[in-house]
Amino acid sequence: MKEKVINFQDKFSLFSDQWKPKIIAQMNDYHFKLARIQGDFIWHDHKHTDETFMVIEGELRIDFRDGSNVQLTAGEMMVVPKGVEHKPFASKECKILLIEPAETINTGDEKHAITAPSDVWI
Amino acid sequence: MKEKVINFQDKFSLFSDQWKPKIIAQMNDYHFKLARIQGDFIWHDHKHTDETFMVIEGELRIDFRDGSNVQLTAGEMMVVPKGVEHKPFASKECKILLIEPAETINTGDEKHAITAPSDVWI
Repeated sequence: MKEKVINFQDKFSLFSDQWKPKIIAQMNDYHFKLARIQGDFIWHDHKHTDETFMVIEGELRIDFRDGSNVQLTAGEMMVVPKGVEHKPFASKECKILLIEPAETINTGDEKHAITAPSDVWI
Repeated sequence: MKEKVINFQDKFSLFSDQWKPKIIAQMNDYHFKLARIQGDFIWHDHKHTDETFMVIEGELRIDFRDGSNVQLTAGEMMVVPKGVEHKPFASKECKILLIEPAETINTGDEKHAITAPSDVWI
């Protein structure tokens, strides 16, 4: 079972690209994904699933369509409800953990240059 | 949405009992639960679901029936596959995050004095 122990920072050391979530574990039909993010993402939602954001290092802001936003730092998490439009943002590079059903696309139904494959393990 | 931001240590400050997982968030039909643990838990498995352990503070050991074990510290996680018997242990108090389907019982099918309610939010 030792190979199943996942150290987040060890995994982050294996990649440097931003906005490209990497799968690190599967629980039933859910994936745990690490991502480095910086700057603005695009507005999107996930019509059929909630999505969990957890900050491993740095600061994450998530904007909502009503003009509000939340700030998350290391040791904090948030579940964005399905169907709620949101736009992640980080002024400096931020390391996050995403938890969501396998095959969830990072940009929801939006096709965009920043849309990433949903099946890359690291 | 600000009320949806969860700070793990803030939540831990709200309770002190051990081996009594507290729900802090729901993602679809999954729960995120914080627990303080110390000493030996009992052998058990979860027949129908994987279970995720993440260490927030301290050190967690998980023993397996083949005599092996894993050690997890802060910033590490592991998914214990469904049906795999395991026994968590912590020599000093350890703060963990569990992620598993709602209504998962901490001791699996085993009924024991340490069996905890699966529906307590904090």
